[in-house]
Amino acid sequence: MEVRQSLLAKNDRLAERNRGFFQARGLLVLNVVSSPGSGKTLLLQETLRGLASRLKAGVIVGDLATDNDAQRLRASGAPVVQITTGTICHLDAEMVARAVKQLDLNGLELLIVENVGNLVCPASFDLGEDLRVVLWSVTEGEDKPLKYPPMFQGADVVIVSKSDLTQACGCDRELALSNLRRVAPRARIFETSAKTGQGMEAWREFLIEKRKEIAARDPLLST
Amino acid sequence: MEVRQSLLAKNDRLAERNRGFFQARGLLVLNVVSSPGSGKTLLLQETLRGLASRLKAGVIVGDLATDNDAQRLRASGAPVVQITTGTICHLDAEMVARAVKQLDLNGLELLIVENVGNLVCPASFDLGEDLRVVLWSVTEGEDKPLKYPPMFQGADVVIVSKSDLTQACGCDRELALSNLRRVAPRARIFETSAKTGQGMEAWREFLIEKRKEIAARDPLLST
Repeated sequence: MEVRQSLLAKNDRLAERNRGFFQARGLLVLNVVSSPGSGKTLLLQETLRGLASRLKAGVIVGDLATDNDAQRLRASGAPVVQITTGTICHLDAEMVARAVKQLDLNGLELLIVENVGNLVCPASFDLGEDLRVVLWSVTEGEDKPLKYPPMFQGADVVIVSKSDLTQACGCDRELALSNLRRVAPRARIFETSAKTGQGMEAWREFLIEKRKEIAARDPLLST
Repeated sequence: MEVRQSLLAKNDRLAERNRGFFQARGLLVLNVVSSPGSGKTLLLQETLRGLASRLKAGVIVGDLATDNDAQRLRASGAPVVQITTGTICHLDAEMVARAVKQLDLNGLELLIVENVGNLVCPASFDLGEDLRVVLWSVTEGEDKPLKYPPMFQGADVVIVSKSDLTQACGCDRELALSNLRRVAPRARIFETSAKTGQGMEAWREFLIEKRKEIAARDPLLST
Protein backbone atom coordinates (compact mmCIF):
# COMPACT_ATOMS: atom_id res chain seq x y z
CA MET A 1 0.00 0.00 0.00
CA GLU A 2 2.84 2.38 0.89
CA VAL A 3 4.59 1.53 -2.35
CA ARG A 4 1.40 2.29 -4.24
CA GLN A 5 1.00 5.62 -2.41
CA SER A 6 4.54 6.61 -3.23
CA LEU A 7 4.11 5.62 -6.90
CA LEU A 8 0.96 7.73 -7.10
CA ALA A 9 2.64 10.71 -5.39
CA LYS A 10 5.47 10.52 -7.93
CA ASN A 11 2.95 10.34 -10.76
CA ASP A 12 1.03 13.33 -9.38
CA ARG A 13 4.20 15.45 -9.40
CA LEU A 14 5.07 14.49 -12.96
CA ALA A 15 1.47 15.14 -14.01
CA GLU A 16 1.66 18.69 -12.63
CA ARG A 17 4.87 19.23 -14.58
CA ASN A 18 3.06 18.04 -17.73
CA ARG A 19 0.19 20.40 -16.87
CA GLY A 20 2.54 23.39 -16.63
CA PHE A 21 4.17 22.44 -19.92
CA PHE A 22 0.82 22.11 -21.67
CA GLN A 23 -0.34 25.47 -20.23
CA ALA A 24 2.75 27.21 -21.55
CA ARG A 25 1.98 25.84 -25.02
CA GLY A 26 -1.71 26.83 -24.87
CA LEU A 27 -2.71 23.21 -25.47
CA LEU A 28 -6.11 21.79 -24.56
CA VAL A 29 -5.35 18.24 -23.35
CA LEU A 30 -7.86 15.39 -23.07
CA ASN A 31 -7.42 12.07 -21.27
CA VAL A 32 -9.89 9.74 -22.98
CA VAL A 33 -10.75 6.61 -20.99
CA SER A 34 -13.28 3.78 -21.16
CA SER A 35 -13.75 0.02 -21.20
CA PRO A 36 -12.22 -1.84 -24.12
CA GLY A 37 -14.59 -1.60 -27.07
CA SER A 38 -16.58 1.48 -26.03
CA GLY A 39 -15.66 3.14 -29.31
CA LYS A 40 -12.84 5.54 -28.30
CA THR A 41 -10.93 5.23 -31.55
CA LEU A 42 -13.92 5.67 -33.87
CA LEU A 43 -15.11 8.64 -31.81
CA LEU A 44 -11.66 10.23 -32.10
CA GLN A 45 -11.43 9.52 -35.83
CA GLU A 46 -14.74 11.29 -36.39
CA THR A 47 -13.80 14.10 -33.99
CA LEU A 48 -10.58 14.75 -35.91
CA ARG A 49 -12.23 14.46 -39.33
CA GLY A 50 -14.86 17.03 -38.38
CA LEU A 51 -12.44 19.43 -36.69
CA ALA A 52 -10.06 19.45 -39.66
CA SER A 53 -9.17 23.08 -40.29
CA ARG A 54 -10.84 24.41 -37.13
CA LEU A 55 -8.52 23.00 -34.46
CA LYS A 56 -5.07 21.52 -35.04
CA ALA A 57 -4.86 18.27 -33.10
CA GLY A 58 -2.28 15.65 -32.20
CA VAL A 59 -2.85 12.27 -30.59
CA ILE A 60 -1.04 9.99 -28.13
CA VAL A 61 -2.50 6.51 -28.04
CA GLY A 62 -1.82 3.78 -25.49
CA ASP A 63 -2.35 0.05 -26.03
CA LEU A 64 -1.05 -3.16 -24.50
CA ALA A 65 -0.28 -4.48 -27.97
CA THR A 66 -0.71 -3.64 -31.70
CA ASP A 67 -0.64 -0.21 -33.32
CA ASN A 68 -4.09 -0.69 -34.90
CA ASP A 69 -5.55 2.40 -33.25
CA ALA A 70 -2.54 4.59 -34.09
CA GLN A 71 -2.84 3.56 -37.73
CA ARG A 72 -6.55 4.31 -37.82
CA LEU A 73 -6.00 7.75 -36.26
CA ARG A 74 -3.07 8.60 -38.55
CA ALA A 75 -5.42 8.32 -41.51
CA SER A 76 -6.99 11.58 -40.27
CA GLY A 77 -3.75 13.40 -41.06
CA ALA A 78 -3.09 14.27 -37.40
CA PRO A 79 0.30 13.39 -35.91
CA VAL A 80 -0.02 10.28 -33.75
CA VAL A 81 2.44 8.81 -31.23
CA GLN A 82 1.90 5.23 -30.07
CA ILE A 83 2.72 4.04 -26.53
CA THR A 84 2.86 0.25 -26.26
CA THR A 85 2.43 -0.67 -22.59
CA GLY A 86 2.95 -4.46 -22.75
CA THR A 87 1.19 -5.70 -19.64
CA ILE A 88 0.72 -2.29 -17.97
CA CYS A 89 -2.95 -1.48 -17.57
CA HIS A 90 -2.86 2.35 -17.79
CA LEU A 91 -0.85 5.30 -19.04
CA ASP A 92 1.08 7.36 -16.51
CA ALA A 93 2.40 10.93 -16.58
CA GLU A 94 5.95 9.87 -17.41
CA MET A 95 4.88 7.81 -20.44
CA VAL A 96 2.93 10.81 -21.70
CA ALA A 97 5.90 13.17 -21.15
CA ARG A 98 8.12 10.87 -23.21
CA ALA A 99 5.54 10.60 -25.97
CA VAL A 100 5.06 14.40 -26.10
CA LYS A 101 8.76 14.74 -26.97
CA GLN A 102 8.09 12.79 -30.17
CA LEU A 103 5.32 15.16 -31.29
CA ASP A 104 5.84 18.32 -33.33
CA LEU A 105 3.97 20.79 -31.10
CA ASN A 106 4.25 23.79 -33.43
CA GLY A 107 0.79 25.16 -34.01
CA LEU A 108 -0.86 22.34 -32.09
CA GLU A 109 -3.98 23.41 -30.18
CA LEU A 110 -5.49 20.13 -29.01
CA LEU A 111 -3.71 17.07 -27.63
CA ILE A 112 -5.83 13.95 -27.27
CA VAL A 113 -4.50 11.11 -25.13
CA GLU A 114 -6.34 7.86 -25.80
CA ASN A 115 -5.71 5.74 -22.72
CA VAL A 116 -5.57 1.94 -22.47
CA GLY A 117 -9.06 0.40 -22.47
CA ASN A 118 -9.73 -0.08 -18.75
CA LEU A 119 -12.53 1.36 -16.65
CA VAL A 120 -10.65 0.96 -13.36
CA CYS A 121 -6.90 1.60 -13.20
CA PRO A 122 -6.46 4.79 -15.28
CA ALA A 123 -8.71 6.54 -12.72
CA SER A 124 -5.74 6.79 -10.31
CA PHE A 125 -3.25 8.25 -12.79
CA ASP A 126 -3.41 11.97 -13.55
CA LEU A 127 -1.64 12.66 -16.85
CA GLY A 128 -1.70 16.48 -16.55
CA GLU A 129 -4.82 16.74 -18.73
CA ASP A 130 -7.37 19.56 -18.69
CA LEU A 131 -10.34 17.26 -19.12
CA ARG A 132 -10.93 13.64 -18.31
CA VAL A 133 -13.32 12.32 -20.93
CA VAL A 134 -15.04 9.03 -20.02
CA LEU A 135 -16.85 7.08 -22.72
CA TRP A 136 -19.72 4.81 -21.82
CA SER A 137 -21.40 2.89 -24.64
CA VAL A 138 -25.11 2.03 -24.57
CA THR A 139 -24.17 -1.64 -25.13
CA GLU A 140 -22.51 -1.88 -21.69
CA GLY A 141 -25.56 -1.71 -19.43
CA GLU A 142 -27.05 1.20 -17.51
CA ASP A 143 -25.49 0.12 -14.19
CA LYS A 144 -21.85 0.68 -15.15
CA PRO A 145 -21.49 4.21 -13.68
CA LEU A 146 -22.64 2.82 -10.31
CA LYS A 147 -20.36 -0.21 -10.52
CA TYR A 148 -17.20 1.69 -11.52
CA PRO A 149 -17.55 4.92 -9.54
CA PRO A 150 -13.91 6.09 -9.29
CA MET A 151 -13.60 6.62 -13.03
CA PHE A 152 -16.95 8.37 -13.44
CA GLN A 153 -16.56 10.51 -10.30
CA GLY A 154 -13.46 12.05 -11.85
CA ALA A 155 -15.04 12.73 -15.23
CA ASP A 156 -15.21 16.26 -16.66
CA VAL A 157 -17.03 14.97 -19.72
CA VAL A 158 -19.03 11.79 -20.25
CA ILE A 159 -19.59 10.74 -23.83
CA VAL A 160 -22.41 8.29 -24.36
CA SER A 161 -21.28 6.34 -27.44
CA LYS A 162 -23.03 4.02 -29.92
CA SER A 163 -26.36 5.78 -29.29
CA ASP A 164 -27.61 4.33 -32.58
CA LEU A 165 -27.68 0.93 -30.82
CA THR A 166 -29.86 2.10 -27.90
CA GLN A 167 -32.96 0.27 -29.08
CA ALA A 168 -31.20 -2.84 -30.41
CA CYS A 169 -29.56 -3.30 -26.96
CA GLY A 170 -32.71 -2.59 -25.03
CA CYS A 171 -30.85 0.18 -23.22
CA ASP A 172 -32.99 2.33 -20.89
CA ARG A 173 -31.69 5.78 -21.83
CA GLU A 174 -33.36 7.66 -18.95
CA LEU A 175 -32.01 5.24 -16.35
CA ALA A 176 -28.52 5.45 -17.84
CA LEU A 177 -28.54 9.27 -17.81
CA SER A 178 -29.87 9.34 -14.28
CA ASN A 179 -27.09 6.96 -13.12
CA LEU A 180 -24.47 9.07 -14.90
CA ARG A 181 -25.74 12.28 -13.29
CA ARG A 182 -25.77 10.61 -9.87
CA VAL A 183 -22.11 9.48 -10.06
CA ALA A 184 -20.73 12.31 -12.18
CA PRO A 185 -22.86 15.35 -11.25
CA ARG A 186 -20.34 17.91 -12.52
CA ALA A 187 -19.67 16.21 -15.87
CA ARG A 188 -20.92 17.58 -19.17
CA ILE A 189 -22.73 14.76 -21.00
CA PHE A 190 -22.80 14.28 -24.79
CA GLU A 191 -24.95 11.60 -26.38
CA THR A 192 -23.28 10.54 -29.60
CA SER A 193 -23.03 8.06 -32.42
CA ALA A 194 -19.81 8.27 -34.37
CA LYS A 195 -21.49 6.04 -36.95
CA THR A 196 -24.49 8.28 -37.69
CA GLY A 197 -22.88 11.57 -36.62
CA GLN A 198 -25.47 12.21 -33.90
CA GLY A 199 -24.17 14.64 -31.28
CA MET A 200 -20.71 14.84 -32.83
CA GLU A 201 -20.83 18.48 -33.87
CA ALA A 202 -21.92 19.60 -30.37
CA TRP A 203 -18.91 17.74 -28.95
CA ARG A 204 -16.55 19.35 -31.50
CA GLU A 205 -17.92 22.83 -30.77
CA PHE A 206 -17.41 22.21 -27.07
CA LEU A 207 -13.73 21.42 -27.76
CA ILE A 208 -13.30 24.58 -29.83
CA GLU A 209 -14.84 26.68 -27.03
CA LYS A 210 -12.72 25.01 -24.35
CA ARG A 211 -9.56 25.60 -26.34
CA LYS A 212 -10.48 29.31 -26.62
CA GLU A 213 -10.82 29.47 -22.81
CA ILE A 214 -7.45 27.75 -22.42
CA ALA A 215 -5.72 30.10 -24.82
CA ALA A 216 -7.17 33.13 -23.00
CA ARG A 217 -6.34 32.05 -19.45
CA ASP A 218 -3.45 33.25 -17.34
CA PRO A 219 -0.89 30.47 -17.43
CA LEU A 220 0.14 28.96 -14.07
CA LEU A 221 -2.42 31.02 -12.16
CA SER A 222 -5.62 29.38 -13.32
CA THR A 223 -7.08 26.28 -11.72
CA MET B 1 8.75 -4.25 -10.26
CA GLU B 2 10.26 -6.44 -7.52
CA VAL B 3 7.34 -5.64 -5.24
CA ARG B 4 4.97 -6.65 -8.02
CA GLN B 5 6.89 -9.92 -8.58
CA SER B 6 6.75 -10.76 -4.92
CA LEU B 7 3.02 -9.96 -4.72
CA LEU B 8 2.39 -12.23 -7.70
CA ALA B 9 4.52 -15.02 -6.23
CA LYS B 10 2.52 -14.82 -2.99
CA ASN B 11 -0.73 -14.89 -4.96
CA ASP B 12 0.47 -17.92 -6.95
CA ARG B 13 1.13 -19.86 -3.75
CA LEU B 14 -2.27 -19.02 -2.31
CA ALA B 15 -3.91 -19.92 -5.62
CA GLU B 16 -2.31 -23.38 -5.51
CA ARG B 17 -3.63 -23.84 -2.00
CA ASN B 18 -7.11 -22.91 -3.25
CA ARG B 19 -6.64 -25.39 -6.11
CA GLY B 20 -5.82 -28.22 -3.71
CA PHE B 21 -8.82 -27.34 -1.56
CA PHE B 22 -11.15 -27.29 -4.57
CA GLN B 23 -9.75 -30.63 -5.80
CA ALA B 24 -10.41 -32.25 -2.45
CA ARG B 25 -14.03 -31.10 -2.65
CA GLY B 26 -14.46 -32.30 -6.26
CA LEU B 27 -15.45 -28.76 -7.30
CA LEU B 28 -15.23 -27.47 -10.87
CA VAL B 29 -14.11 -23.85 -10.51
CA LEU B 30 -14.45 -21.12 -13.15
CA ASN B 31 -12.77 -17.69 -13.18
CA VAL B 32 -15.02 -15.58 -15.42
CA VAL B 33 -13.39 -12.41 -16.77
CA SER B 34 -14.15 -9.72 -19.35
CA SER B 35 -14.49 -5.99 -19.98
CA PRO B 36 -17.21 -4.20 -18.05
CA GLY B 37 -20.50 -4.71 -19.84
CA SER B 38 -19.65 -7.86 -21.82
CA GLY B 39 -22.60 -9.60 -20.25
CA LYS B 40 -21.00 -11.80 -17.56
CA THR B 41 -23.88 -11.54 -15.11
CA LEU B 42 -26.66 -12.25 -17.61
CA LEU B 43 -24.68 -15.18 -19.02
CA LEU B 44 -24.26 -16.59 -15.51
CA GLN B 45 -27.93 -16.04 -14.65
CA GLU B 46 -28.95 -18.02 -17.72
CA THR B 47 -26.28 -20.65 -17.09
CA LEU B 48 -27.56 -21.22 -13.55
CA ARG B 49 -31.22 -21.18 -14.58
CA GLY B 50 -30.59 -23.85 -17.22
CA LEU B 51 -28.37 -26.04 -15.03
CA ALA B 52 -30.90 -26.08 -12.18
CA SER B 53 -31.14 -29.68 -11.01
CA ARG B 54 -28.26 -30.95 -13.16
CA LEU B 55 -25.31 -29.28 -11.40
CA LYS B 56 -25.34 -27.65 -7.98
CA ALA B 57 -23.59 -24.31 -8.28
CA GLY B 58 -22.38 -21.50 -6.02
CA VAL B 59 -21.11 -18.09 -7.03
CA ILE B 60 -18.51 -15.60 -5.79
CA VAL B 61 -18.88 -12.19 -7.40
CA GLY B 62 -16.39 -9.31 -7.31
CA ASP B 63 -17.22 -5.65 -7.90
CA LEU B 64 -15.68 -2.29 -7.04
CA ALA B 65 -19.04 -1.09 -5.72
CA THR B 66 -22.71 -2.14 -5.45
CA ASP B 67 -24.09 -5.65 -4.96
CA ASN B 68 -26.29 -5.43 -8.07
CA ASP B 69 -24.74 -8.51 -9.66
CA ALA B 70 -24.91 -10.56 -6.46
CA GLN B 71 -28.62 -9.73 -6.13
CA ARG B 72 -29.32 -10.68 -9.75
CA LEU B 73 -27.49 -14.01 -9.31
CA ARG B 74 -29.16 -14.81 -5.99
CA ALA B 75 -32.50 -14.80 -7.78
CA SER B 76 -31.38 -18.09 -9.41
CA GLY B 77 -31.49 -19.75 -5.99
CA ALA B 78 -27.73 -20.42 -5.95
CA PRO B 79 -25.72 -19.29 -2.91
CA VAL B 80 -23.82 -16.10 -3.76
CA VAL B 81 -21.01 -14.36 -1.87
CA GLN B 82 -20.16 -10.77 -2.76
CA ILE B 83 -16.61 -9.37 -2.64
CA THR B 84 -16.53 -5.57 -2.72
CA THR B 85 -13.04 -4.51 -3.84
CA GLY B 86 -13.35 -0.71 -3.48
CA THR B 87 -10.65 0.58 -5.84
CA ILE B 88 -8.90 -2.76 -6.43
CA CYS B 89 -9.11 -3.76 -10.06
CA HIS B 90 -9.09 -7.57 -9.78
CA LEU B 91 -9.82 -10.48 -7.44
CA ASP B 92 -6.87 -12.32 -5.91
CA ALA B 93 -6.50 -15.79 -4.43
CA GLU B 94 -6.74 -14.59 -0.84
CA MET B 95 -10.02 -12.73 -1.44
CA VAL B 96 -11.44 -15.89 -3.00
CA ALA B 97 -10.25 -18.05 -0.08
CA ARG B 98 -12.01 -15.74 2.38
CA ALA B 99 -15.19 -15.74 0.32
CA VAL B 100 -15.19 -19.56 0.05
CA LYS B 101 -15.37 -19.76 3.85
CA GLN B 102 -18.73 -17.99 3.68
CA LEU B 103 -20.20 -20.56 1.27
CA ASP B 104 -21.91 -23.78 2.29
CA LEU B 105 -19.92 -26.25 0.16
CA ASN B 106 -22.00 -29.31 0.99
CA GLY B 107 -23.09 -30.92 -2.26
CA LEU B 108 -21.66 -28.09 -4.34
CA GLU B 109 -20.27 -29.24 -7.69
CA LEU B 110 -19.58 -26.00 -9.55
CA LEU B 111 -18.09 -22.79 -8.17
CA ILE B 112 -18.29 -19.77 -10.47
CA VAL B 113 -16.11 -16.76 -9.67
CA GLU B 114 -17.27 -13.65 -11.52
CA ASN B 115 -14.25 -11.35 -11.54
CA VAL B 116 -14.20 -7.53 -11.63
CA GLY B 117 -14.88 -6.20 -15.15
CA ASN B 118 -11.37 -5.57 -16.46
CA LEU B 119 -9.73 -7.07 -19.54
CA VAL B 120 -6.19 -6.39 -18.28
CA CYS B 121 -5.33 -6.83 -14.61
CA PRO B 122 -7.13 -10.08 -13.64
CA ALA B 123 -4.92 -11.84 -16.24
CA SER B 124 -2.01 -11.81 -13.75
CA PHE B 125 -3.92 -13.25 -10.78
CA ASP B 126 -4.48 -17.01 -10.63
CA LEU B 127 -7.38 -17.76 -8.28
CA GLY B 128 -6.88 -21.54 -8.22
CA GLU B 129 -9.55 -22.08 -10.87
CA ASP B 130 -9.80 -25.04 -13.25
CA LEU B 131 -10.89 -22.92 -16.19
CA ARG B 132 -10.39 -19.30 -17.09
CA VAL B 133 -13.47 -18.24 -19.03
CA VAL B 134 -13.06 -15.01 -21.04
CA LEU B 135 -16.14 -13.28 -22.41
CA TRP B 136 -15.89 -11.16 -25.53
CA SER B 137 -19.07 -9.46 -26.75
CA VAL B 138 -19.70 -8.78 -30.44
CA THR B 139 -20.29 -5.11 -29.59
CA GLU B 140 -16.63 -4.62 -28.59
CA GLY B 141 -14.95 -4.86 -31.99
CA GLU B 142 -13.15 -7.75 -33.66
CA ASP B 143 -9.67 -6.45 -32.77
CA LYS B 144 -9.95 -6.83 -28.98
CA PRO B 145 -8.24 -10.27 -28.73
CA LEU B 146 -5.20 -8.80 -30.54
CA LYS B 147 -5.17 -5.65 -28.39
CA TYR B 148 -5.52 -7.42 -25.01
CA PRO B 149 -3.43 -10.57 -25.58
CA PRO B 150 -2.49 -11.52 -21.98
CA MET B 151 -6.08 -12.21 -20.99
CA PHE B 152 -6.97 -14.15 -24.15
CA GLN B 153 -3.71 -16.13 -24.21
CA GLY B 154 -4.57 -17.56 -20.81
CA ALA B 155 -8.15 -18.48 -21.73
CA ASP B 156 -9.38 -22.07 -21.49
CA VAL B 157 -12.79 -21.03 -22.77
CA VAL B 158 -13.84 -17.99 -24.79
CA ILE B 159 -17.52 -17.14 -24.76
CA VAL B 160 -18.67 -14.88 -27.54
CA SER B 161 -21.59 -13.02 -25.98
CA LYS B 162 -24.48 -10.91 -27.35
CA SER B 163 -24.34 -12.83 -30.65
CA ASP B 164 -27.89 -11.60 -31.37
CA LEU B 165 -26.36 -8.13 -31.91
CA THR B 166 -23.79 -9.28 -34.53
CA GLN B 167 -25.62 -7.68 -37.44
CA ALA B 168 -26.77 -4.53 -35.62
CA CYS B 169 -23.14 -3.83 -34.66
CA GLY B 170 -21.75 -4.64 -38.06
CA CYS B 171 -19.48 -7.21 -36.42
CA ASP B 172 -17.45 -9.35 -38.85
CA ARG B 173 -17.95 -12.77 -37.25
CA GLU B 174 -15.33 -14.61 -39.30
CA LEU B 175 -12.67 -12.00 -38.56
CA ALA B 176 -13.50 -12.09 -34.86
CA LEU B 177 -13.28 -15.89 -34.69
CA SER B 178 -10.02 -15.87 -36.63
CA ASN B 179 -8.52 -13.29 -34.22
CA LEU B 180 -9.70 -15.33 -31.24
CA ARG B 181 -8.16 -18.53 -32.62
CA ARG B 182 -4.90 -16.71 -33.31
CA VAL B 183 -4.49 -15.39 -29.76
CA ALA B 184 -6.20 -18.22 -27.89
CA PRO B 185 -5.49 -21.33 -30.01
CA ARG B 186 -6.14 -23.81 -27.19
CA ALA B 187 -9.40 -22.23 -26.00
CA ARG B 188 -12.78 -23.83 -26.55
CA ILE B 189 -15.06 -21.20 -28.15
CA PHE B 190 -18.81 -20.90 -27.56
CA GLU B 191 -20.91 -18.42 -29.52
CA THR B 192 -23.84 -17.42 -27.35
CA SER B 193 -26.69 -15.07 -26.72
CA ALA B 194 -28.04 -15.20 -23.19
CA LYS B 195 -30.99 -13.18 -24.48
CA THR B 196 -32.13 -15.63 -27.21
CA GLY B 197 -30.60 -18.76 -25.65
CA GLN B 198 -28.35 -19.42 -28.66
CA GLY B 199 -25.38 -21.63 -27.74
CA MET B 200 -26.31 -21.70 -24.06
CA GLU B 201 -27.14 -25.40 -23.82
CA ALA B 202 -23.84 -26.42 -25.47
CA TRP B 203 -22.03 -24.34 -22.84
CA ARG B 204 -24.03 -25.93 -20.00
CA GLU B 205 -23.36 -29.45 -21.31
CA PHE B 206 -19.67 -28.62 -21.51
CA LEU B 207 -19.73 -27.67 -17.81
CA ILE B 208 -21.52 -30.89 -16.87
CA GLU B 209 -18.92 -32.94 -18.79
CA LYS B 210 -16.01 -31.03 -17.26
CA ARG B 211 -17.36 -31.55 -13.79
CA LYS B 212 -17.59 -35.31 -14.47
CA GLU B 213 -13.91 -35.32 -15.47
CA ILE B 214 -13.01 -33.41 -12.31
CA ALA B 215 -14.95 -35.78 -10.07
CA ALA B 216 -13.25 -38.79 -11.70
CA ARG B 217 -9.69 -37.52 -11.51
CA ASP B 218 -7.05 -38.46 -9.01
CA PRO B 219 -6.85 -35.52 -6.58
CA LEU B 220 -3.46 -33.82 -6.27
CA LEU B 221 -1.89 -35.94 -9.04
CA SER B 222 -3.72 -34.53 -12.06
CA THR B 223 -2.56 -31.45 -13.95
